[in-house]
Amino acid sequence: MVSILIIHGPNLNLLGSRETAIYGAETIEELNQRCHSLASDLGISLEIRQSNSEGEIVDMIQQAARTAKGIVINPGAYTHYSYAIRDAIAAVKLPAVEVHLSNIHAREDFRHKSVIAPVAAGQISGFGAESYLLGLRAIAELLRDAR
Amino acid sequence: MVSILIIHGPNLNLLGSRETAIYGAETIEELNQRCHSLASDLGISLEIRQSNSEGEIVDMIQQAARTAKGIVINPGAYTHYSYAIRDAIAAVKLPAVEVHLSNIHAREDFRHKSVIAPVAAGQISGFGAESYLLGLRAIAELLRDAR
Amino acid sequence: MVSILIIHGPNLNLLGSRETAIYGAETIEELNQRCHSLASDLGISLEIRQSNSEGEIVDMIQQAARTAKGIVINPGAYTHYSYAIRDAIAAVKLPAVEVHLSNIHAREDFRHKSVIAPVAAGQISGFGAESYLLGLRAIAELLRDAR
Amino acid sequence: MVSILIIHGPNLNLLGSRETAIYGAETIEELNQRCHSLASDLGISLEIRQSNSEGEIVDMIQQAARTAKGIVINPGAYTHYSYAIRDAIAAVKLPAVEVHLSNIHAREDFRHKSVIAPVAAGQISGFGAESYLLGLRAIAELLRDAR
Amino acid sequence: MVSILIIHGPNLNLLGSRETAIYGAETIEELNQRCHSLASDLGISLEIRQSNSEGEIVDMIQQAARTAKGIVINPGAYTHYSYAIRDAIAAVKLPAVEVHLSNIHAREDFRHKSVIAPVAAGQISGFGAESYLLGLRAIAELLRDAR
Amino acid sequence: MVSILIIHGPNLNLLGSRETAIYGAETIEELNQRCHSLASDLGISLEIRQSNSEGEIVDMIQQAARTAKGIVINPGAYTHYSYAIRDAIAAVKLPAVEVHLSNIHAREDFRHKSVIAPVAAGQISGFGAESYLLGLRAIAELLRDAR
Amino acid sequence: MVSILIIHGPNLNLLGSRETAIYGAETIEELNQRCHSLASDLGISLEIRQSNSEGEIVDMIQQAARTAKGIVINPGAYTHYSYAIRDAIAAVKLPAVEVHLSNIHAREDFRHKSVIAPVAAGQISGFGAESYLLGLRAIAELLRDAR
Amino acid sequence: MVSILIIHGPNLNLLGSRETAIYGAETIEELNQRCHSLASDLGISLEIRQSNSEGEIVDMIQQAARTAKGIVINPGAYTHYSYAIRDAIAAVKLPAVEVHLSNIHAREDFRHKSVIAPVAAGQISGFGAESYLLGLRAIAELLRDAR
Amino acid sequence: MVSILIIHGPNLNLLGSRETAIYGAETIEELNQRCHSLASDLGISLEIRQSNSEGEIVDMIQQAARTAKGIVINPGAYTHYSYAIRDAIAAVKLPAVEVHLSNIHAREDFRHKSVIAPVAAGQISGFGAESYLLGLRAIAELLRDAR
Amino acid sequence: MVSILIIHGPNLNLLGSRETAIYGAETIEELNQRCHSLASDLGISLEIRQSNSEGEIVDMIQQAARTAKGIVINPGAYTHYSYAIRDAIAAVKLPAVEVHLSNIHAREDFRHKSVIAPVAAGQISGFGAESYLLGLRAIAELLRDAR
Amino acid sequence: MVSILIIHGPNLNLLGSRETAIYGAETIEELNQRCHSLASDLGISLEIRQSNSEGEIVDMIQQAARTAKGIVINPGAYTHYSYAIRDAIAAVKLPAVEVHLSNIHAREDFRHKSVIAPVAAGQISGFGAESYLLGLRAIAELLRDAR
Amino acid sequence: MVSILIIHGPNLNLLGSRETAIYGAETIEELNQRCHSLASDLGISLEIRQSNSEGEIVDMIQQAARTAKGIVINPGAYTHYSYAIRDAIAAVKLPAVEVHLSNIHAREDFRHKSVIAPVAAGQISGFGAESYLLGLRAIAELLRDAR
Repeated sequence: MVSILIIHGPNLNLLGSRETAIYGAETIEELNQRCHSLASDLGISLEIRQSNSEGEIVDMIQQAARTAKGIVINPGAYTHYSYAIRDAIAAVKLPAVEVHLSNIHAREDFRHKSVIAPVAAGQISGFGAESYLLGLRAIAELLRDAR
Repeated sequence: MVSILIIHGPNLNLLGSRETAIYGAETIEELNQRCHSLASDLGISLEIRQSNSEGEIVDMIQQAARTAKGIVINPGAYTHYSYAIRDAIAAVKLPAVEVHLSNIHAREDFRHKSVIAPVAAGQISGFGAESYLLGLRAIAELLRDAR
Repeated sequence: MVSILIIHGPNLNLLGSRETAIYGAETIEELNQRCHSLASDLGISLEIRQSNSEGEIVDMIQQAARTAKGIVINPGAYTHYSYAIRDAIAAVKLPAVEVHLSNIHAREDFRHKSVIAPVAAGQISGFGAESYLLGLRAIAELLRDAR
Repeated sequence: MVSILIIHGPNLNLLGSRETAIYGAETIEELNQRCHSLASDLGISLEIRQSNSEGEIVDMIQQAARTAKGIVINPGAYTHYSYAIRDAIAAVKLPAVEVHLSNIHAREDFRHKSVIAPVAAGQISGFGAESYLLGLRAIAELLRDAR
Repeated sequence: MVSILIIHGPNLNLLGSRETAIYGAETIEELNQRCHSLASDLGISLEIRQSNSEGEIVDMIQQAARTAKGIVINPGAYTHYSYAIRDAIAAVKLPAVEVHLSNIHAREDFRHKSVIAPVAAGQISGFGAESYLLGLRAIAELLRDAR
Repeated sequence: MVSILIIHGPNLNLLGSRETAIYGAETIEELNQRCHSLASDLGISLEIRQSNSEGEIVDMIQQAARTAKGIVINPGAYTHYSYAIRDAIAAVKLPAVEVHLSNIHAREDFRHKSVIAPVAAGQISGFGAESYLLGLRAIAELLRDAR
Repeated sequence: MVSILIIHGPNLNLLGSRETAIYGAETIEELNQRCHSLASDLGISLEIRQSNSEGEIVDMIQQAARTAKGIVINPGAYTHYSYAIRDAIAAVKLPAVEVHLSNIHAREDFRHKSVIAPVAAGQISGFGAESYLLGLRAIAELLRDAR
Repeated sequence: MVSILIIHGPNLNLLGSRETAIYGAETIEELNQRCHSLASDLGISLEIRQSNSEGEIVDMIQQAARTAKGIVINPGAYTHYSYAIRDAIAAVKLPAVEVHLSNIHAREDFRHKSVIAPVAAGQISGFGAESYLLGLRAIAELLRDAR
Repeated sequence: MVSILIIHGPNLNLLGSRETAIYGAETIEELNQRCHSLASDLGISLEIRQSNSEGEIVDMIQQAARTAKGIVINPGAYTHYSYAIRDAIAAVKLPAVEVHLSNIHAREDFRHKSVIAPVAAGQISGFGAESYLLGLRAIAELLRDAR
Repeated sequence: MVSILIIHGPNLNLLGSRETAIYGAETIEELNQRCHSLASDLGISLEIRQSNSEGEIVDMIQQAARTAKGIVINPGAYTHYSYAIRDAIAAVKLPAVEVHLSNIHAREDFRHKSVIAPVAAGQISGFGAESYLLGLRAIAELLRDAR
Repeated sequence: MVSILIIHGPNLNLLGSRETAIYGAETIEELNQRCHSLASDLGISLEIRQSNSEGEIVDMIQQAARTAKGIVINPGAYTHYSYAIRDAIAAVKLPAVEVHLSNIHAREDFRHKSVIAPVAAGQISGFGAESYLLGLRAIAELLRDAR
Repeated sequence: MVSILIIHGPNLNLLGSRETAIYGAETIEELNQRCHSLASDLGISLEIRQSNSEGEIVDMIQQAARTAKGIVINPGAYTHYSYAIRDAIAAVKLPAVEVHLSNIHAREDFRHKSVIAPVAAGQISGFGAESYLLGLRAIAELLRDAR
C-alpha cells in the first residue's frame, strides 16, 4: 500500500479558530478526518504531521524519504521564503504537491510567489479543505503514472 | 443537472503534438473524453470549447453566464496578460477554476504570474490532463457548497 | 456634419449587469442613447461600435480613417496592454479621446497605466456614463479648434 | 446656488506666457473668464484661487469644506508628489475633479503618475483650457447625481 | 524646566472631523490638552504648533534650536517626501521623536516609508492620541539620559 | 520547392500611409511584390498573409505547420506582449525569422523587448522593406543548412 | 488583573554583551526587571519569554491566546521576513505592539521594512530599553480603550 | 549691467552652524559677501534671497523673469523632489545654474538625483562656497555667449 | 567602389574553437573569406579588423570616418555595456549595422539589451556567419538608398 | 590549541545522497573526516555540528562565543534570508568564514545573494568538500594574524 | 608651481567635428589652448592627455600620483560604468574634478549616473568648454585650501 | 609540471600603497613572492601577469589556453561589469578561480555582483593576500580531481 505524508505548516493547527473568513470553520481534526477517509478510498496509507517550525518541517521531509512515496504539503507562510524547505523537497526526490486553503494568488502581493512550487510537481490553491483532497488525488495519480 | 463550461485557450488544440515533453502526449480529444467521463460520474453536464482568440474567449465567458453554473478555464498564454479575460470572469460572477497542464510556477519567470487567478476561485497547476479532472471536481464541490 | 466613432472595448456590452458598484446600473443601450442625444445637440453624426476582440478594435480604428473625423474610445482592459490599438490610433492620425467609466487611477495598480493615452489627445476617467458625454464635447471642441 | 472652488496650482499664474507650445496662449484671466461664463450657464457660483505654495493649497481645500460643494483642481507639478494635498482632499470629503491642460500621460514619465487621482472623483487631462470647462460640467453632474 | 516643541503637520488641524475611522474622534484641542497635562506631570514646558506648510515647519524646527531641548513631530503626509524637514532636523541637532496617530506601516505602500525617521531618535506609530503621549515620555527620557 | 509563410502583423496593412517617417512610403503591395520577386530568385514558394488579430496570427502559424517549411513574421505591436504567438511558434517547431521595418531597439522603451525572439531563429530589425528580403534570405539559408 | 506576554526574539538574550554601541549596555535581566517594575505600577501581570527560534515564537504567540490579553514583541531579525510570526499574530487576534531597541528606520535598508507591523497595533522603535516600557504603556492603554 | 538672482534653498540660512563637517564653517553672510565681491569683479549686479518654502522659491523664480537675466540656485533638499521649482525654471526661460555646497553624488542615494538639473543649463556640485562662485562665473559666461 | 569596415569584437578571434554549440564550427578566417566573397559580388571594398580592446574598437570606428562609408560591427560582449563604442558610432555618423552570430535575445538576460543598437541603423542576430553576410547586404542597400 | 566550530546548515546531513550532480557523492561523514584530518595538521581543535533549524544555528553560534575562536559555516539555504543568523555572527564577534559546496554565484538568481557574507570575514564558494578545507585554512590564518 | 593633469576620455579627440549641436564647434586643440591660458593665469603647470582606452586612463591616473597634485577629468562615456577608473582615482588619493561638456543630467537616462563622482571632489556639468575652465579653477582652489 | 596563470586586474599594481585599510600593506611583489613559494610547494609552475586594460586581460586569458592548465584571476573592478572577460574564460574552457583581497560582499552594493563568477569554478573573497594562496590550492585540487 502506497504511503503518503501530509505536512501542515505553521499556524494550520489553529484551523477552525483562525480567521475563518479566509480559512473556513472546519477544524484541523475534521480536515484530517476527511483526508484519512479519502485515502482509505484511494488505497493510500496516510501520515499527517503539523509543525510551526521550519527546521522540523525540513526534518519531516527528510524522514519521508524513508517512509513515504509522496508528500502533500501546505507550507503556510513558509511558502513564500523557505528555501530550506524547497531544498529539502528537491533533495529527497519524492513527488510533492503544494496545497493552500485560500487562493494565495488573490491575496497580498507577498503571497503570490511560492519558492516551493518550482520543485513541487504542482500546486493547488483556493479550495479550502478540498485543496487537500484534490492534492491527495493528484499525488495518487502521479504515483500511479510513475509505476 | 449542473452545467459547466470548459474553455481551452490558445494552442491547446495542438495538444499531443505540441512540445510533448512539457505538455504530454495525450491529444485534446482524449483529454476531452476523460473530462466527459468524469463529468458523467459527477452528474455534471459539460460543454467544452477552444479558441486561439482572446476576444472569442471573452465572448465564451459572457455567454456562459446564461448557459453554465461554473467555468474551468486553461487560459494558456493569455494567463499572463489578458486583463480582458480577467474582467470577463469578474463580470459574469460565475465561479471559475484556472487549470494548467504544466507547473507554470516551475517554468519561465513570465509564466509565474497569472492575471486571471485573482478573480478565480482557485488555481490547479502541474498535473497534466489530471489538472482538468481535478478542476472539474473542484468546481463541482464549489457549486455543492454554494447551494 | 462632423462624424465621430465611439468604440466600446471588451466587456462593455455587459454594462448595467456587470459589477454595478463600480460601473453603474445604466445599460449600454441607455448610455448610447444619451450619447446620440448629445451628439444631436452638438451637430455631430455618431457611429457606435462594441467589440471584445483587440483585432476587431484595430480594424474599427483603421476603418474610421475613412468614415470619421475623430474617435472616442473606452479600450476597457486593453487600455493597459494593447500596443496594437495604440499603434492603430497613431497610424490613422485621427484625434482620439480615451474615456473610462470608473476612475482607473483609483483602482488596482495595473489599471493606473494606459498604453493608449500617449497617442490620444486626452483622457477622461471616473465620471461613469458622463465620461462619454464629456469625451464627445472634448472631441467636438478639438475638431472645432482644428478647423 | 451650488458653489464650486477652482484651484490653480503652481506656475499656472504664468499661463499664456509659459511654454505656450505645451500649455497654449490663452492667459489665466481669459481661462477664468470662460469658467465664470460656463458656471453662469450651469447655475453654479464660482470661486477661483491660485497659489504656488503647497501649504496654501492645503489651506484652500480645508476652507472649501465650509464654502463650497465641490472642487476643480489643477495641482500642477504637485500632482506628482503632494500627499499633503491628497490628504486634504480626502479629509474634507468634497467631490474633487482633477484637471490638466496638457495630456500628462503623454509627457515625461514622472508626469504619468498622479498621487491626487486616487482620492479624486475623476481626472480630465489634455484638452487645454477646455479641461477646466469639462471639469466644471463633471462636478456639476456629480453634485446633481448626489442630490 | 526642559522645553519641548510639539509640531503637528499638514491636515492635523482637522483632527476629530477628518476620517475618524482612521484618526479617531478626538479633536486637536483635546489632544493638545492631554499633552499639556502629561507635560505638566513630567515637569516639561510645552509649546505646540501646527502648519500645513512644509516651509513653515522647517522654520519652526530651526527656531526650536533656540527655544527647545527636543521635538515631538507628526509630519503628516510630509513624512513620506519632505527631505527639507529631514535636513532641518539633522541641522538643529535636537533629539526628535516622530509620532503618527495611525499605524503607517499598515496603510498604503507610500506611507510605509519615512524620510524623516533616519534623522529622528525614534518613531512611534499607531496608537492614536496616545502616540503623542508616548512620544513625550520618550523625549523626556532621552533628555534625562543625555544629561 | 520550399514553401515559406510571411506573416504581417497588426497595422502593417496600412504600410505606405502610416507614419511614413518611421515606416517608409512603400505600400504593403509593393513590399509583397519585392518579396515574391526575391522568393522567385531563391526558388522559394511564398504565401503572404496579414491580420490585425492575435488569434488569427496564432491560427496562421498553426496552419503553417502543414503548409510551409519556415516562417518570416513581423509581429508588429504583438512583438512586445503576445506570449500566445510565441507559444504557437514554439509549438509548430518551424524555423521562424522575426523582422521589423523600423529599428525597434532605437524607439520607445517598450519596443526594445521582444517576447517572440527567444523562440525565433533570429531577428532582423531596422532596414525597412529590406528587413523582409534579408529575412527571406535568412530562412532560405536556415532551411538549406537543415537539409 | 490583565496579563501581557513580552516576547524577545533572536539574539536578544545577548543584550548587554552584543554590539553595545547599537543596543546599549543594559542586560536582558535588567531590562526584564524594569518591565516587571512598570507592569506592577500599571497593574499588569507580566510573562516574559525569549527564543532564537521562529517556530517557538509562533508557538508562544499561539499559547498567548489562552493566557494573555496582549503581546509586546521585539521580533529581532525575524521582523524583516517572518510571515509565519505575522500570521500567528493575525490568527490569535490579540493586540500586539512591535518594539525595537534601535531605530530600525535609521539602519541598513533591509531593516526598514517590517512584515509584522501591518498586523500589529503599532510600532515603537529607537528608544533602547525604553521602547519596551513605552510598549507596555501602549498595550495597557489599548486594552483599557477596548474595555 | 547684467542682473543675476542667487537663490538659497531650505536650511541654507543655517550655514556655518549646520553640519559643518559636510557644509563647512563659513556663514551664509560670509558666502554672500564673497559672491557680491566676485559679482563686482565680473560687472554683475546681484540679488540674493533665501527661503525655506518651496512656494516662495517658485515665486522668486517667477519674479526673476522681470528683474534678472539669469539665476544661480541651490535648491537644497528641494533638488530631489520639487517639480514645482523645475516647472518654474522651465517657465521663465532664464538660464539657471544649479549649485551645491557638498558633492551630492557622493552622499545618500536620494541625493544623487536632481529633478531640477534637466531644466538647468548645468550643475556644479561639491566645492563648498566655491560652488557659488563657479556658478556665478558660469552664468556670466552663458550670458556673454548668448549676446 | 564603396568601402566597408567589418569589426569583430572581443573573443571573436576564437571563432571555431570557442563554444561551437553556440557559435558554430566555422573559423574566423573562413567567415572572413565568405564576407570577402560576397563583398566582391556586391562591388564593395572590404576591410576586416578584430580587437579584444574596447579602446581599440573606438579607435577603429573613428578611423573609419576617413576610410569607409559604412560599418558592420559585431561588438561581442561590449554590446551590452560599451557606451564608449556607442558614442564613437554616433560621433562618426557612418551607417552601422550591428550583427551577432547567436540570437542574443534567446540567451542570458544580460545579452538581451544592446547599448549599441539605438545608434545603429539596424540589428541582425541569430544566423551564425550568415548574420555577417546579411549585414553586408543591408549596409550595401543602405548606402545605395542614401545616394 | 585553537578551537574552531564548523556548522553545517540545513539539508547538509543528506550530503552524498542529495543531488550529487550539484553537491558531489562524498557523504557528510567523509567530509567531516577530512576536516578533522586537516585540523589535526593545522593544530586546530575542531567541533562539527549540523542542524536544519535556523534557531538552533543561532544557538550554536551564541554558544561558540564561549567555546571557540572562530567559525566555519555553510548556512545552506539560510544563506539567502536568515538575518537572524547574520545578527548572531555579528553579535558574537568571532571571525566567521562562509563556505559553500557549489558555486552559488553560478546557480539560480536567489542563491547569488548572501545576507551572511557582509558580517563574515570572507566567503569561499564552489569547490565541493574542498571549500571546507580552504575555509579551515582561512580561519587558521585569520586567527594567526589576529594574535 | 602646482601641476595638474587634465584627462580627456573617449571620443573627446573628435571635439569640434562630433555632434556639434551637443558638444559645440570648438576643437580639442582650441579647448586645450584655453585651458593652458587659464592655467598660466592661475600659476598652474598643466599636462593634458587623451585616450579612448579605459586601461590607458587608469594608467594615466596612476602615473599622476607621481607627477601631479590634482586631476581634472572628463571620463566621457566611461563616466557611467568604469569602476576601474573610479578605483584608480580612489587609489591615488589626488583630488579630482569631474567635468562634462554637456549637461549629463539633461540627456539620456544612462548618462544621469556617474560612477566616478562618489570618489571625485566634485562635478561640473553642462557649460561646454567652460566646464574645463571652471574645473581648473575648482582644483586650484581645492589645492590652495589643502595647503 | 602543471602550469597556472595568475592574473591581477586593474589597480592591483598599486597594492601596498592603495587604500591599505581595505587592501592591506603588503606590496604586489611580496604577494607574488608568497604565491611562487606556495606554487613551488604544490609542484605548480606559475606565471603572474598584471594589467589595467580589459582588452589585455582578455588577451592573457586567450593565450593561457595554450600555456596553462588553470587560471587564478582577481578581476578587480572589472569583476562587476566585464562580460568580455567572462566570455574569454568561458571560451578557453580552463578552470578559473576568482579571488578578491577584500570581502566584496561586505562593501558597496555594486561590488556584491560578479559577472565573472558564473563561468568560474568558484570564488574566494575577503582573506587579503591569503585569498590568492587559497585560490592556488583550490585550482591545484581542481586539476588533480580532473585527471
